[in-house]
Amino acid sequence: MKTKEQTKPLLQEAKLGSRGRLLIKCPDRPGIVAAISKFLFEHEANIIESNQYSNNPEGGTFFIRIEFDRPNLAESAAQMEQDFEMLASEFAMEYQFTYAEERKKMAIFVSKEPHCLLELLWEWQSGDLPTDIALVISNHEGTRGMVEALGIPFYYIPANKDIRKQVEEQQIQLLKEHQVDVIVLARYMQILTEDFVSHFPNQIINIHHSFLPAFIGARPYERAHERGVKLIGATSHYVTNDLDEGPIIEQDIERVNHRDDVSGLKKIGQSIERRVLARAVKWHLEDRVIVHGNKTIVFH
Amino acid sequence: MKTKEQTKPLLQEAKLGSRGRLLIKCPDRPGIVAAISKFLFEHEANIIESNQYSNNPEGGTFFIRIEFDRPNLAESAAQMEQDFEMLASEFAMEYQFTYAEERKKMAIFVSKEPHCLLELLWEWQSGDLPTDIALVISNHEGTRGMVEALGIPFYYIPANKDIRKQVEEQQIQLLKEHQVDVIVLARYMQILTEDFVSHFPNQIINIHHSFLPAFIGARPYERAHERGVKLIGATSHYVTNDLDEGPIIEQDIERVNHRDDVSGLKKIGQSIERRVLARAVKWHLEDRVIVHGNKTIVFH
Amino acid sequence: MKTKEQTKPLLQEAKLGSRGRLLIKCPDRPGIVAAISKFLFEHEANIIESNQYSNNPEGGTFFIRIEFDRPNLAESAAQMEQDFEMLASEFAMEYQFTYAEERKKMAIFVSKEPHCLLELLWEWQSGDLPTDIALVISNHEGTRGMVEALGIPFYYIPANKDIRKQVEEQQIQLLKEHQVDVIVLARYMQILTEDFVSHFPNQIINIHHSFLPAFIGARPYERAHERGVKLIGATSHYVTNDLDEGPIIEQDIERVNHRDDVSGLKKIGQSIERRVLARAVKWHLEDRVIVHGNKTIVFH
Amino acid sequence: MKTKEQTKPLLQEAKLGSRGRLLIKCPDRPGIVAAISKFLFEHEANIIESNQYSNNPEGGTFFIRIEFDRPNLAESAAQMEQDFEMLASEFAMEYQFTYAEERKKMAIFVSKEPHCLLELLWEWQSGDLPTDIALVISNHEGTRGMVEALGIPFYYIPANKDIRKQVEEQQIQLLKEHQVDVIVLARYMQILTEDFVSHFPNQIINIHHSFLPAFIGARPYERAHERGVKLIGATSHYVTNDLDEGPIIEQDIERVNHRDDVSGLKKIGQSIERRVLARAVKWHLEDRVIVHGNKTIVFH
Repeated sequence: MKTKEQTKPLLQEAKLGSRGRLLIKCPDRPGIVAAISKFLFEHEANIIESNQYSNNPEGGTFFIRIEFDRPNLAESAAQMEQDFEMLASEFAMEYQFTYAEERKKMAIFVSKEPHCLLELLWEWQSGDLPTDIALVISNHEGTRGMVEALGIPFYYIPANKDIRKQVEEQQIQLLKEHQVDVIVLARYMQILTEDFVSHFPNQIINIHHSFLPAFIGARPYERAHERGVKLIGATSHYVTNDLDEGPIIEQDIERVNHRDDVSGLKKIGQSIERRVLARAVKWHLEDRVIVHGNKTIVFH
Repeated sequence: MKTKEQTKPLLQEAKLGSRGRLLIKCPDRPGIVAAISKFLFEHEANIIESNQYSNNPEGGTFFIRIEFDRPNLAESAAQMEQDFEMLASEFAMEYQFTYAEERKKMAIFVSKEPHCLLELLWEWQSGDLPTDIALVISNHEGTRGMVEALGIPFYYIPANKDIRKQVEEQQIQLLKEHQVDVIVLARYMQILTEDFVSHFPNQIINIHHSFLPAFIGARPYERAHERGVKLIGATSHYVTNDLDEGPIIEQDIERVNHRDDVSGLKKIGQSIERRVLARAVKWHLEDRVIVHGNKTIVFH
Repeated sequence: MKTKEQTKPLLQEAKLGSRGRLLIKCPDRPGIVAAISKFLFEHEANIIESNQYSNNPEGGTFFIRIEFDRPNLAESAAQMEQDFEMLASEFAMEYQFTYAEERKKMAIFVSKEPHCLLELLWEWQSGDLPTDIALVISNHEGTRGMVEALGIPFYYIPANKDIRKQVEEQQIQLLKEHQVDVIVLARYMQILTEDFVSHFPNQIINIHHSFLPAFIGARPYERAHERGVKLIGATSHYVTNDLDEGPIIEQDIERVNHRDDVSGLKKIGQSIERRVLARAVKWHLEDRVIVHGNKTIVFH
Repeated sequence: MKTKEQTKPLLQEAKLGSRGRLLIKCPDRPGIVAAISKFLFEHEANIIESNQYSNNPEGGTFFIRIEFDRPNLAESAAQMEQDFEMLASEFAMEYQFTYAEERKKMAIFVSKEPHCLLELLWEWQSGDLPTDIALVISNHEGTRGMVEALGIPFYYIPANKDIRKQVEEQQIQLLKEHQVDVIVLARYMQILTEDFVSHFPNQIINIHHSFLPAFIGARPYERAHERGVKLIGATSHYVTNDLDEGPIIEQDIERVNHRDDVSGLKKIGQSIERRVLARAVKWHLEDRVIVHGNKTIVFH
């Protein structure tokens, strides 16, 4: 969520439709819901869905996600956002208006293993991921075919730790050109620098192939096999500068047993990774995730 | 949920505490949330948790559950409820105020198999079921010991279809005496008459030992075994006069395989029944369930 | 499982490799395991994995699946199968030798919805389905592109109930030409006649979009929504002439709630259908499924 | 599993019944199954269920669990075990004969939280845990009532790290007197010394209140809450001298969300702990678990 200074200055009015969302985070105190709902009512926005959470009713933080319907947002959104500033200021809100028709632009990063990329492409083709996939960036050529077949630009950028700086400059350049809103690391096996991450706060979603915080770091399936666990999992989280320590969006697991060798664990794990990442990305695109400290509030 | 005419005339003021809940069902239209939240704010009630759902944004039904904090409810609740009538009338609301400290009085009906009763007693002892267990009624003597050991009155009322009318009269008499708010059928194997059910609309919770609507009726585990299913389940629902057809509150399943005979399915099933019933009862006690037609909205 | 008369007369010896499987069903009695394991030992076949089940130790049916390693099966398999006949006869066994390298030939039938077809193609491409996909048959043109892109023959055969007989003759002709061993109905929405089914006993695998036996027949998601269930599921089963009543191979479910409308249930359901069908097909291809009456024994 | 030197010298013949189990671990090589099944057949033992696993078909370790039926084991078991020694020696087997009627003697250790103890008592009362509960040892008095009500001896032994040595001597003394075969730590919050553990190799079963190896050590629910995980779990394992690092028998998880505070996580966790521990104990009592290095093979 951005503070109001960060919200985009220009709305692409023509395509706003009638469905909007309002995400708010502010110090909890009486009267917030009354003030917001009065504001929306007066701006002819009908509340369709509303989810609220306070992490501590006595002096904690208040979170709300409201989905509303307001015909002709193209005409009214700018005024509504401007009017909201006074209310936001009164309650010290961080907030964000988004519009369902204004689809987020996504970049997908991938290395050799294509299963997570394929899942995203498949969900996107089926109309289940409300996004425009602007480009795919890979340090391998292997997935070029399937990406370009869908009319999505594919950029092959070889990468290793010695040329990390140049690689990231090239990547950032592409991401800016394509006005990317969200970056999905679909099993991209290169470490990102602090500088890269700082360009995209809470906008980079990773899939880690373990049930974090178990098996942080490399080779999680090998280590799960050595430990003899009876369940394996996957974790999707926002990327921060603490490796594998960012806010968790979604996790899931499957049961395994002594017959599953490392290769078997990887196969099972791929299926978990696919669905965990797809869910996390979908929730992000629908503005269902609010980051607070190192945790997420997911309203679904 | 009761219409306002049905709400209890006298609040037991002394024990209301500061935590209240407001459940509302009404025709959807703009401004409902604004009106409610303004009302609560003006009555110094701070919204702690709020869940809303509209089954059809264009002309459907609007549902909301609000949990609020308002010090000294004992002094203010009666006035607040009275003031709310005008608002309720304006929006044609069915609604219900409840107070966390005003615990519901529960009756548990059980036959031979004690596992669901035991689970409820155990959750209640642990402080996880906010209720007063007023009495246990059984057509078998088997569970008397464990019930009376906890200081709960136990009534043995033999039952069979020939004496159903007398049995139910006796039961209704006891339920009235104990001012029971909710009846849990914890594997009570007698059919209730239409008359009995009509006394307690949406107040009788049953556990059915199958994943409804599969295996409606008798002997579900035997039939599941004959069919060779790979999962078995249990369903908790409100009792209506259509046997096994009432609004479903909760369901769950577990995996089985060809090695599980009928007796094995029953053992696994008991564990599912226990947790499904316990969850459904808990949600009912916390006023998280709204019945609408033959379905439930569960806000959790 | 075939009786021995049905086993293929000619082994394609060149490609047998060293890994074989032996599936047996026979009346239970002492000494079966001893006789089989002695036989395999004497034929230099080392048991890698063995699963056994008796549905009733006293006078029931005995089932076993053995996976063995025997170098140079190309030279020895025919003799081993011939030698086994005496043992099989002594114990009145139905049995089947299969060889991992002799991959089953698969036909996939599909109508409009491509998600199950795509899942199978994806698993097959990843090396997870040990099969040769011989052809895809559809009554719609929609999936031709993705099928032919993988070099798999695609046959468009329009179908409706008036021309069912001709359609099925054409299909059977193609299946015979391609020497198909297994037919997967990946959301093929035409009913198959008794005659068609009788050509392929226990060789046709269907995915039904509900947790059978709940919602047998048409429009399961609509009916699940009307009933207000809290879980939805999918079922993969062998096709028999009783619609939706064939032996169940695999089932799974996911949790839903009041917010999921019919369209939402279908989306969630597609994800369940994909994984349930993929598992069932995989187990069939690995000879892990024995049909007995209207049930399956799945050794995994 | 014991080596043959460790097997009990005297069988309590009178109560052996007809159901036996044979667990074997040995270097893999051809002919093992043939030899074992021939042996059992010649000793008139009919194989009811058999599970086999090789961790590496080429030069690895072979594991088998056989359940057999042999009338009048009281007369024949001693001779059968003696005859087996030659076979065991030939294949360098570690092995163990057990008899279903010869129920294991169990001790349960518990501290303040009674939920795991209660689950075990409940399963035992229902006939689902084939064991004799010989005694309960606790460093708190809280559970004395429920234990003694079932006729089970209860020993209150206060414990803390300063008197650990004396406490354990007293415990070992009691365990020897009661001829205990298996010790279940049902949320016993004292650390056991290396000396104590060495007396009971693979005979002490613990429940850890996290999904190991995540949150090894103290306060796992607090740490899970801090990390913002979306699933919490529990792990049952054999106790070794590496704290929380012993061979895992069973794990399970449940979904949580941002609304669950630490206290909520503990409640949910208790329900997971109960069922995970109950399953692990049951499998141990049915001789379904073979320990190999730091892992378990669980045949179920």
